[in-house]
Amino acid sequence: MHWILIAYDITTDDKSGRRRLRRVAKVCERYGRRVQKSLFECQGDDKTLQKLRFELLDEIDERYDSLRIYHMGKEIENKMESFGVDETIRFDDPLVF
Amino acid sequence: MHWILIAYDITTDDKSGRRRLRRVAKVCERYGRRVQKSLFECQGDDKTLQKLRFELLDEIDERYDSLRIYHMGKEIENKMESFGVDETIRFDDPLVF
Repeated sequence: MHWILIAYDITTDDKSGRRRLRRVAKVCERYGRRVQKSLFECQGDDKTLQKLRFELLDEIDERYDSLRIYHMGKEIENKMESFGVDETIRFDDPLVF
Repeated sequence: MHWILIAYDITTDDKSGRRRLRRVAKVCERYGRRVQKSLFECQGDDKTLQKLRFELLDEIDERYDSLRIYHMGKEIENKMESFGVDETIRFDDPLVF
């Protein structure tokens, strides 16, 4: 098991871009925790992370979008500093009506 | 010397938020390379990176914004995968008139 960071910039000038953005976020949500709008921390074994990479490449349009994956090793807490709003908490919040 | 990643979400609902966004980007640009809209890769010694952290904390509003710093160690190339538009190139492009 190791940690990866997924960061993306999806070009949302048109409807198809906005759809890609939603779909990319949905893929990431299934694999990890959202820590900022376009930044996820995901933990998995090689096979899982390979599947995640494959699914993401299937969603983005490489002509317009950018996807970056950073390999963080077995631990992430000691390599990360968080300031301000903790999006982990915000995005994990259940919706309350 | 080591590499860090700077990722931010600045809340830009009002004028002051948009100013913070510009100022945070400007600080990051002085220290590293922009690889996505709100993602920078910066290289420096401990002292430089401490100064960078200090300057960023001076710009963000911790009530509304999120700043995350990831420590990537001495090398980043072997820990990073980039797909699609390479923002490093795009953002480094000189403006041509």
